[in-house]
Amino acid sequence: MQQRIKFLVMDLEGVLVPEVWIAFAEKTGIAELRLTTRDIADYDQLMQHRLRVLKENSLKLADIQQVIAEMEPLPGARQYLQWLREKCQFVILSDTFYEFAAPLMRKLDYPTLLCNSLLCDEQDNIVGYKMRLLDGKRHAVLALKQLNYEVMAMGDSFNDIAMLQEAELGILFRPSDLVVKTYPQFQVCSEYQQVMKIIEKQL
Amino acid sequence: MQQRIKFLVMDLEGVLVPEVWIAFAEKTGIAELRLTTRDIADYDQLMQHRLRVLKENSLKLADIQQVIAEMEPLPGARQYLQWLREKCQFVILSDTFYEFAAPLMRKLDYPTLLCNSLLCDEQDNIVGYKMRLLDGKRHAVLALKQLNYEVMAMGDSFNDIAMLQEAELGILFRPSDLVVKTYPQFQVCSEYQQVMKIIEKQL
Repeated sequence: MQQRIKFLVMDLEGVLVPEVWIAFAEKTGIAELRLTTRDIADYDQLMQHRLRVLKENSLKLADIQQVIAEMEPLPGARQYLQWLREKCQFVILSDTFYEFAAPLMRKLDYPTLLCNSLLCDEQDNIVGYKMRLLDGKRHAVLALKQLNYEVMAMGDSFNDIAMLQEAELGILFRPSDLVVKTYPQFQVCSEYQQVMKIIEKQL
Repeated sequence: MQQRIKFLVMDLEGVLVPEVWIAFAEKTGIAELRLTTRDIADYDQLMQHRLRVLKENSLKLADIQQVIAEMEPLPGARQYLQWLREKCQFVILSDTFYEFAAPLMRKLDYPTLLCNSLLCDEQDNIVGYKMRLLDGKRHAVLALKQLNYEVMAMGDSFNDIAMLQEAELGILFRPSDLVVKTYPQFQVCSEYQQVMKIIEKQL
């Protein structure tokens, strides 16, 4: 007897790397970039705000990538992925942009990443962004299930919930109290070691 | 203006690593394991034959993995993937089994692999196998297209054709003359350098 093959999907920011916009605001000292969906609920409005601030500060894509390149994955994240690669297949599902994630992916030994992309003009200014898909994380889980995988999902925030609900097993990693209270059905982990134990049991 | 994000899918055997069963037959000197779908057209019959031969030679999964661990990826394959990781996202689509592929994946720095799995008993004997999905390679391309990626595909043989046909761009890598004659619509490459040029042009 054999179960279906397991496949793990994971969020990126807050799970394997710091929140990029917050870290970027800290590194550059531009306080206006600290706003998140908690301050501006509409994601498109928030992104337009961010792009405006980048423009006002004459920050081109290359400048931003340089700042992001100084960031580090969360402590232990790289080792966790190294362990994981021997155990099961996984991909990262994120709402970020390939152009921002690239320097951090390098530091995580290039896991496969499904996310979105930026629009730049010929002078390397970011002029917009493109969401690859609405509700992209959940659709990726659906696609893996259609390919006959049993999906485990790991995320930290509200934008991961649809993905966790669609998966056969959902893990919240360092979530806020509000997320835990709102979705008590998911296992909560604060350390990679705990996640590893849960995954080990599933295989 | 921006096109859809590109995603590359690739076959494994013949494209990045040698044909595992043939290399295994050579390493072990068991001629009966040289048979391929050219000799026994029905894949299940062929697999049952292989499993019978393994049993007759008292070869358990661990023995086979040890032999496979001595194999090397095709010359240049690892460097090609290293180059690719900076350029675009990709996964490997193979009809092989996770248990066989594992030692070779390690040597290719663990690309994401979608394939099948073996059934083993408690004494580590291979007693069967499980195809994850019928026509799995084509379905993976379909899934990626549903996730709004533009898919490029690279394969070498008849079992890759459905995947190449479903993709927006199909590349044959070191195919047999018969494959080229039968499917003249695909670009043919004999070296990774040529593949890299084609991909570079697409991005």
